[in-house]
This record gives sequence, C-alpha cells and structure tokens, in this order.
Amino acid sequence: MEVLVPFSTDRPKSRLSAALSPAERASFARAMLADVLEAVTAAGGDPRVLATGPVDADVACPVDVDDRPLTRAVNAALSERRAAADRPVGVVMGDLAIATPSALCDLFDAVGRSVDVSIAPGRGGGTNALAVDHAEFRVDYHGASYRDHRRIADEVDATVGVIDSHRLATDVDEPADLAEVLIHGDGAAAAWLRDAGFALEDGGGRVGVARVEDGNDASIRDRDPF
Amino acid sequence: MEVLVPFSTDRPKSRLSAALSPAERASFARAMLADVLEAVTAAGGDPRVLATGPVDADVACPVDVDDRPLTRAVNAALSERRAAADRPVGVVMGDLAIATPSALCDLFDAVGRSVDVSIAPGRGGGTNALAVDHAEFRVDYHGASYRDHRRIADEVDATVGVIDSHRLATDVDEPADLAEVLIHGDGAAAAWLRDAGFALEDGGGRVGVARVEDGNDASIRDRDPF
Repeated sequence: MEVLVPFSTDRPKSRLSAALSPAERASFARAMLADVLEAVTAAGGDPRVLATGPVDADVACPVDVDDRPLTRAVNAALSERRAAADRPVGVVMGDLAIATPSALCDLFDAVGRSVDVSIAPGRGGGTNALAVDHAEFRVDYHGASYRDHRRIADEVDATVGVIDSHRLATDVDEPADLAEVLIHGDGAAAAWLRDAGFALEDGGGRVGVARVEDGNDASIRDRDPF
Repeated sequence: MEVLVPFSTDRPKSRLSAALSPAERASFARAMLADVLEAVTAAGGDPRVLATGPVDADVACPVDVDDRPLTRAVNAALSERRAAADRPVGVVMGDLAIATPSALCDLFDAVGRSVDVSIAPGRGGGTNALAVDHAEFRVDYHGASYRDHRRIADEVDATVGVIDSHRLATDVDEPADLAEVLIHGDGAAAAWLRDAGFALEDGGGRVGVARVEDGNDASIRDRDPF
C-alpha cells in the first residue's frame, strides 16, 4: 500500500518548545520521521513523504513538497494517488515515533478486506493514521478530527474500522509525550532523546522526563508543568 | 479468569481536583468502576473488587476490603487466589473507563496460551492491566511500574506479552483524560460527565474539556492548564 507520511518542515513541533530549541525540534522531528518510515516499510507499506517544504535529511523514499495546509495537501494527494491507481492509500503522521509494524499492519489489513476506511485515533481526538479504500472519502484534520472522519465516512457510506493502539495513539507533540518515546521507543527518536540527555523522571503519578545539561538536572516537568 | 479490580475509596482521583469536587470525584470513580466491571464481565472475566474501604455503591460482584497500599494488597490477593486455584488471575485498574471487552480479551487470552504474564502499559509508564499465570510473579506499582514489571518477570523467568491498546493505556487520572472518556466512552462514566455538564472543547491541538455550570462556560483547560 502506498502510504503518505505528512511532515511539517515549518516550525515543527512548536509545542515542544519548553523542552527543545528550534534546531533541536527540527532534528528530533527528522529522527521521528525516520522511525515512522522504517515502521511503515516493515509493515509492507510504500512510504511517500508529504512535506510542507524541502526535507533537510536523507530520506529513503519519494518526497513530495506541498506547502498548503495539511487537509488540502492530503486530500490533493489522496485524489492523485487514487486516480493513478484505484488502490488503498494510507496516511500515517510523521511524528508517531513509537509506531510498530504490527499496529500498522492491523491498520493496513483492515481496509479492502473488511472496511472502507480504517482509523487509528490519536490521544486528544485527533487522527494519527488512516487507510482509505473509498473513492469519496476525504480528510479534515482541523480540531477533533477523529469524530469528523467518522462523520465524513458515514456521509459517503464508507464502512469504518477503528484501530485500538497505544502506539498509534501516541503522536509526539508535548513534553509529556517524550516519556512515551523513552519508555517504548527503540529507534532513532529514542536514541536522539537519550543522546540529548533526556531520561525518565519518576515523581509519583505518571513518569515525566528530565534533561541533564551542563551538569544540571533540569526537570521539564517542574520547569514547565504539563 | 478471576480478575481483581483495585479501587480506592480514600480520596479517590485527587488529580482531578481542578475539574471535580471531592463528592463528584467519588461519584465519578464509582461510575468508572461500573464500566470496568461490565467490560471485564463481557470479556469473560469474573471480577472481584479490591477496595481500600467499603464501596458506597451497589456492586454486582464480590468486594474485598484491604486498606494496605496497592502493591501489598494486590500481592496478597494474588497469592491467595493462586493458592485457592492454580489458575491465571487478572488485575485491571478500576479507572479504565474506556476499556473494551475486546482489548481485555486480548489481555486475558495471551496468558496460559502463549505467555506467563501479559501487561497493558498505561500512559506515563504505569501498568493498567495484567494477567498472571506464574507462581512467582509479584507486582510493584510504585512509580514507572511497566518497566519494573518487565524486570520482575525476567527475574522469575516468566515470559511476557505486551498488549498495545489505547483503551487500556488510558487510566483516567487527570483532567485531560476526561476528553478520552467523552470521545470514546459509551458507558456510565461518559454519561456521568455529560450529565455534569462536560463537553469537548476544541481549541487547536488536542481537544480539552469544558464544563457548563450555572450558565457559565468554564474551560477546564484555561482555568487550570494541563
């Protein structure tokens, strides 16, 4: 299955600004992208990055640049791919740093065989991954897109399967999400965080992250509560 | 499978204090417990509440009261149940308000058949649900228990299966978690929140919750950022 992987090169991961500098955020975003592309490939997908600008990294798959907002860029690409070949198309966000091939296989396998659209909801009501095998289904990523995508599917009579996966529900947007990468990740993003001095911090309740810099142990949790 | 469902009656859900009064937190905790017991039963489990004090509600299953800390109470119950019958035992937290029978079936089915211990990690490194078919495995819920439980399993030569489920990873501890209940829940906890005036609030990024009280729309997100 061809799999579009949206990736923002324009101020990526701004909600991580309490934890990372702009240059670090760009570098970390590329590490996460590498992990996603590897997982998509291992799941049998053919990834194709859909970037808002040139990607400053070696990427082992095609890269299309489209600087339009996410929804318009994905819908244009969906139309184009479906016109080129009437086959299912996947859309997997480039920040799913702990996505596994197994969870992506579940997502990809559901379409065609049993449903028209399979959806992996993200934490907080977003849509982290989709597989689409329906001519009329279109995306709308604004706001609580999981519910919107279910409504859109209903409107075009597309059957829907929902993939229940913590791995796919975890998009890495906020400092607390870094803990998930350190706990569950084993790829480039987890290595990047460890190299940058991040470690789990156990302070009761959910585990946070702390960063060791210049000999000081700076708790991200304490510095900027989240 | 007999399934222990730990439930705190002693200042339950204190991290929801920005969103709910003490009496509301107790009432909401009971609604979540009802959802968990229903899901466990639908998954073929025989639930048994392990409460820190008397449960002020009609509960359609046995209730054992043990006021010791969670780890000691669960380990004592695990020993006792394993001594009574050498069969697998489940431990499913009472605040998994969006747990589905399907996800719990995956957890229960993994033990006995293929692994000695199956674990559903919680967001933030916790352990939200376990199924144990091993004489020596014991729990330790302090801090980042998911990693500790994997280590403990290694130490007693127990094989481990990890259940990748957003439903089981979502324990409802913090205000942001209420959004997950409103998005995905269809049981008593979701109904409780709606009756109490909670609704999703779409403010960019992840969806939060807001509460309508006395004609005022109070955004929990704005009042107490999380």
